[in-house]
Amino acid sequence: MTFPELKKLQKLFASYLDKHPFAGEPENLYEAQNYIINLGGKRIRPIALLAALQSTNGNLDDGLSAAWAFEIFHNFTLVHDDIMDKSPKRRGKPTVHKKYSMPTAILAGDNMILGAYRGLQGYKNNKYKALSRLLTETGIFICEGQFLDMQFEETTAVNESNYLKMIELKTAVLLGACLKAGAIIGDASKEDAENLYRLGINLGIGFQIMDDILDAFGTDIKVGKRKGGDIIANKKTLLLINAMILANPTQRKNLDNWLSLQYFDEDEKIAAILDIFSELNIRKLAEEKMLEYYEEAEKCYDKLSFDTHSKLALKELMEFIQTRNF
Amino acid sequence: MTFPELKKLQKLFASYLDKHPFAGEPENLYEAQNYIINLGGKRIRPIALLAALQSTNGNLDDGLSAAWAFEIFHNFTLVHDDIMDKSPKRRGKPTVHKKYSMPTAILAGDNMILGAYRGLQGYKNNKYKALSRLLTETGIFICEGQFLDMQFEETTAVNESNYLKMIELKTAVLLGACLKAGAIIGDASKEDAENLYRLGINLGIGFQIMDDILDAFGTDIKVGKRKGGDIIANKKTLLLINAMILANPTQRKNLDNWLSLQYFDEDEKIAAILDIFSELNIRKLAEEKMLEYYEEAEKCYDKLSFDTHSKLALKELMEFIQTRNF
Repeated sequence: MTFPELKKLQKLFASYLDKHPFAGEPENLYEAQNYIINLGGKRIRPIALLAALQSTNGNLDDGLSAAWAFEIFHNFTLVHDDIMDKSPKRRGKPTVHKKYSMPTAILAGDNMILGAYRGLQGYKNNKYKALSRLLTETGIFICEGQFLDMQFEETTAVNESNYLKMIELKTAVLLGACLKAGAIIGDASKEDAENLYRLGINLGIGFQIMDDILDAFGTDIKVGKRKGGDIIANKKTLLLINAMILANPTQRKNLDNWLSLQYFDEDEKIAAILDIFSELNIRKLAEEKMLEYYEEAEKCYDKLSFDTHSKLALKELMEFIQTRNF
Repeated sequence: MTFPELKKLQKLFASYLDKHPFAGEPENLYEAQNYIINLGGKRIRPIALLAALQSTNGNLDDGLSAAWAFEIFHNFTLVHDDIMDKSPKRRGKPTVHKKYSMPTAILAGDNMILGAYRGLQGYKNNKYKALSRLLTETGIFICEGQFLDMQFEETTAVNESNYLKMIELKTAVLLGACLKAGAIIGDASKEDAENLYRLGINLGIGFQIMDDILDAFGTDIKVGKRKGGDIIANKKTLLLINAMILANPTQRKNLDNWLSLQYFDEDEKIAAILDIFSELNIRKLAEEKMLEYYEEAEKCYDKLSFDTHSKLALKELMEFIQTRNF
C-alpha cells in the first residue's frame, strides 16, 4: 500500500526537524537530546497533527512547530520510560541512559519537556494557551498511564477495563492530542476538534491492541520486537487478561504455573501460553475489540465537517495505522 | 530579626498550599508528589513572587496560583536532583526515590513539571503566555545549570567565571523568575520587571556563595547540613576554586593530595583544607564576592519605581536572605 499524502507530510516534517536540532550549552546535554530524536521513527504524531491541520484546509507551515513540540514531548517519554523499564536498546541502538548516563537521560528528558513548551511559543496568545494546555493535560495523562503500567507489573488484579484505561492514557491520548492540536491551529470548530481528539484516541487504543496481538502472533518483521516478548515478561496484555478470565480450572492452573516460574525455556513458555490462547480463542477476541475501536474511529471521521479531499491524509493515516504498512 | 511582612506572605501561601494538594489517580503517584511538597521549607520562591507582586500594589490573591506553580517546579528539581546526586535524605527524611522508588521519583518529577504549567492555567491568555514562557526559559536554565554542576564534579578545570555561571543557572534564575512573575501579574512596567529579575539573580548568586561559606566555616545550625560537607566531597565551590588559583606550589601540592585521597579521616581533611583557606584568606575573598552581588541587588532595588511602603516585603526578603534569620 502506498500513502502519498502521508509521505508528503512525513517529508515536510523531516525537513523541519533537520533544520531545528537542539543547540546550546552544555553541548553534551543537547547532544543527548539530538541523539534520541535522530534515532528516527515514522513520526506518526507530528504527521497526525499535520494531517488534521490539512483536513481543516489550514496552512501546513503553521503546524510545523507544534508538530515538532509534540514529537519532542513523545521522545521525552521514551527517554524516561527507558530508564524506568531498564531498557538497554531502542531501535537497535543504546538507549540514552546507556549511551550517556542515567543523570544525563533524566535531565535530557526534563529539558525536552521544557523544549516542547518552547516549541509552542511562536503561536499567538490564544492559540499558545490552547496548545500548551493541551500539551499539559496530555502529558499528565501520559505520566498517569505510565505509572499504571508499572503498577500492573506488580499485580494480577488487572482487568480489561483498567487495561484499556491504561493504554488510553499511556499512548492513545497523545495521538488524540496531536489531531486536536491540528484542529486548533487550523481554527476548526469545537465539534471537529473534539471528533478529531476522539478519533485519535480510538485509533490509538486499536493500535495498541494490535501491538499486543502482533507481539504474540505476528511474524511480521515490521514489529521490530521479538515475537513473544510480552509473554516471556508476563506482560498483562489484553490477551493475557482475557485468558486469565476465560480459562477453565486446568488452563488457569497451567497459566498460573507459567507466570510464576522464574527459570524457564522461553520458546517452551511461549508455545504453552499460545496453546492456551488458541484453546480460548483469545486472538479473535482481541481482534474484535481492536475492530470496535477502529470502527469508533471511523465514526468520528465520518462526523468531521471537512470535505473529503482535505481529509485524504487523515484517511491515509487511519489506513496506515490499521495496516501498519508504510 | 523579625520579618513581619514575609511572615504574612508565608502564612498566606502556606494556607493556599494546604488547600491545593495534588489529587488524582493513580493515588500513589500523587502521594509521592504531596510527600515532597509536605517536607516543608521556607517557601522562599513563592514568598518572593508575592513580595514582588505586593511591591507593584497588585492583589496578592492573583499571585497565589503562580506562586504555587513555581514552588511545585522548584520541588520537581529537588526530586530529580536527589536521584542524580544519589541523595538518601532531604530535610532529615528519605528522598522520594528512597521512600518510593526511582521510577516513581522520575514520574513524580515529570508530572510536577506539568503540574506547574497547569497551575498557571487560571491566568488570561497574555499573562498565561508571559508566565509560562518565563517558567519554560527558567526551567531550561535550571536543567543546563544542573548539568554543568554534574560536569564540574568530573573536572578540575572549573574557574570562578564558569562556577558563577553555573550557580546563576542552577539556582539564581529561579529566584529572579519568581520576582519577575510577580511583576508580570502586577502589571509592572517592563523596566521594573527586568530590575526585579536582576535583583533576584544577584540575590540568588550571593545566597549561593554564602551557602559555600557557611558549609566551610559556619557553625550555625540553621544551615541544616554538616559543616565541611563540600570539603569532604571535593565540591568545586568558590572557596576551593579560589584556593586552587591562589595556592603557592607547596599549598597546591597539599591541596591536590587531599583532593586525590580516596580514604581519609574526614575531620583531618576538613582541618587541613581550612588551614589552606585561612592562609590564603579565602573566606574574605568569598565574602567580598558575595557582597558585590548583594550590592548589585540593592542597586536593582533602588531602581524600582514602586513606593517604599509597597516595597517593604521585598526589602525584608533581601534582608532575610542576607542574614538567613527567619
